[in-house]
Amino acid sequence: MSKPRIGGVYCAAVTPLDAELSPDLARFVAHCHRLLDAGCHGVALLGTTGEANSFSLAERRAILEAAVAGGVDPARLMPGTGLCALADTIELTRHALSLGVTRVVMLPPFYYKGVAEDGLYAAYAHVLDAVADDRLEVVLYHIPQVSGVPIGHGLIARLIAAYPDTVVGIKDSAGDLANMAAIAAAHPGFAVLAGADPLLLPLLGLGGAGCITATSNLVGDSLRTVYDHHADPAAADRVAAAQARIEAWRNLSNSYVQIPAIKAMVAATTGEDGLARVRPPLVALDAAARAALAAKLETLP
Amino acid sequence: MSKPRIGGVYCAAVTPLDAELSPDLARFVAHCHRLLDAGCHGVALLGTTGEANSFSLAERRAILEAAVAGGVDPARLMPGTGLCALADTIELTRHALSLGVTRVVMLPPFYYKGVAEDGLYAAYAHVLDAVADDRLEVVLYHIPQVSGVPIGHGLIARLIAAYPDTVVGIKDSAGDLANMAAIAAAHPGFAVLAGADPLLLPLLGLGGAGCITATSNLVGDSLRTVYDHHADPAAADRVAAAQARIEAWRNLSNSYVQIPAIKAMVAATTGEDGLARVRPPLVALDAAARAALAAKLETLP
Repeated sequence: MSKPRIGGVYCAAVTPLDAELSPDLARFVAHCHRLLDAGCHGVALLGTTGEANSFSLAERRAILEAAVAGGVDPARLMPGTGLCALADTIELTRHALSLGVTRVVMLPPFYYKGVAEDGLYAAYAHVLDAVADDRLEVVLYHIPQVSGVPIGHGLIARLIAAYPDTVVGIKDSAGDLANMAAIAAAHPGFAVLAGADPLLLPLLGLGGAGCITATSNLVGDSLRTVYDHHADPAAADRVAAAQARIEAWRNLSNSYVQIPAIKAMVAATTGEDGLARVRPPLVALDAAARAALAAKLETLP
Repeated sequence: MSKPRIGGVYCAAVTPLDAELSPDLARFVAHCHRLLDAGCHGVALLGTTGEANSFSLAERRAILEAAVAGGVDPARLMPGTGLCALADTIELTRHALSLGVTRVVMLPPFYYKGVAEDGLYAAYAHVLDAVADDRLEVVLYHIPQVSGVPIGHGLIARLIAAYPDTVVGIKDSAGDLANMAAIAAAHPGFAVLAGADPLLLPLLGLGGAGCITATSNLVGDSLRTVYDHHADPAAADRVAAAQARIEAWRNLSNSYVQIPAIKAMVAATTGEDGLARVRPPLVALDAAARAALAAKLETLP
């Protein structure tokens, strides 16, 4: 069995909330379609940007079900399913498969820090053995600055060796291009996906497969331009312009707390104020910050 | 309304697992009774040592229900109920109250790091406003080396001011006695509980209320001696001997990875091998390490 390598521009989609801070499913589905229309290959919902771990399992299931029921092709959805409790990870992964969603992004259990590689291997193995579905494709999730639990090269190699048709990629959100390039070089066919928008371009030249990023909530079209034309010398100007736009939008979001800023920027660009809401412990930008951000947005390419 | 201050020796109880790594409820209940018989005032189940975040909500509910059904006085149980998703924290807190268990230890949402104090305040307030039960007493949980989310003095003060009859204490597992003393001095009547066994003794002299610790799975009797007699000059020798025993057992556990070591030591002292099991991502001590540890146990006071 051989599956095509995961690749392309995946959006780490924000999750719109209603006034009670519950997931606004209709607006979420509309956002998914907006992202795909902009050129994203897929929607990596329920990740860090999507505030997944601020939702209950029932809410997470409902969000994914809404996307599928709302007409998003399950092949273009890649939900986060990794939690601290392996039973929960198993449940969410099985649930995704039950909807025909076969690709997931899987955090390691992230409560305990400094755990041994053997323990992380055992955790992933426990989940994969329990799910035991040939359709499943797992993207490991390396975001140590948030999870506190890095995915090291030794762990990656062991998981690929044991589950070659299932452990098929990694989202690397640590921002270290050399680390991504080293993984890509060590494991041809394994999909290395950048977690930071500006790194899509250099990573594609180093054997990377694409990206899963936050700024693609706003500039998916530019990321798509980079992805499609990065190797075409005749398109160098277009690619450079797209990259400059990506960097400008990302730099603006990162001059605030990133996730609330991305949501505020989505609210500003769509005109839907409510899209700026976040769940505690995140804090929405206040009115003054949102006004200042909206003014700066006008100046971006 | 005024409630007596929480105080005494609470055990951060381990959770026995069966061969399938599911909670072994019968052995858990037996362990609770063993701890209370040893002199612990209460059982702080489902904390970090109890591997709470490695269990699903259903498993966590079942563990608490087993303790109550097994005859442990609900007034002596203090489960951990704090999760990343506030809906889950609300559910577990309500569940505890439904069983007559009114005291809980509550982690802040711990996925996002570096969040603003406003966000942590909003998270706790959201939970407390939703539960809205006058019986509830919440012990905040400061264990930044694991959770990655410290509970600062500003947050403590705001929560006490807003919820004076509900936010009644803190478990401080960061190991900094000066921090504990400062909280106790700033908030008389607020229960500061040491998360590290050797700090019970000095903390009691600095206005602290007691402890919630891992080594009390093994030497609860010594911790009780310290608690009962720390201020009695005539008992100085007994207290010093108890403190030396506490330190010796703790030092041994901490010369390995702590939680697997505590479980291995409980297995060795009870003769029940299975009590050494842990869930991934934790890794049980291997046979050689367990044998070495058991030999060292023989030499301890």
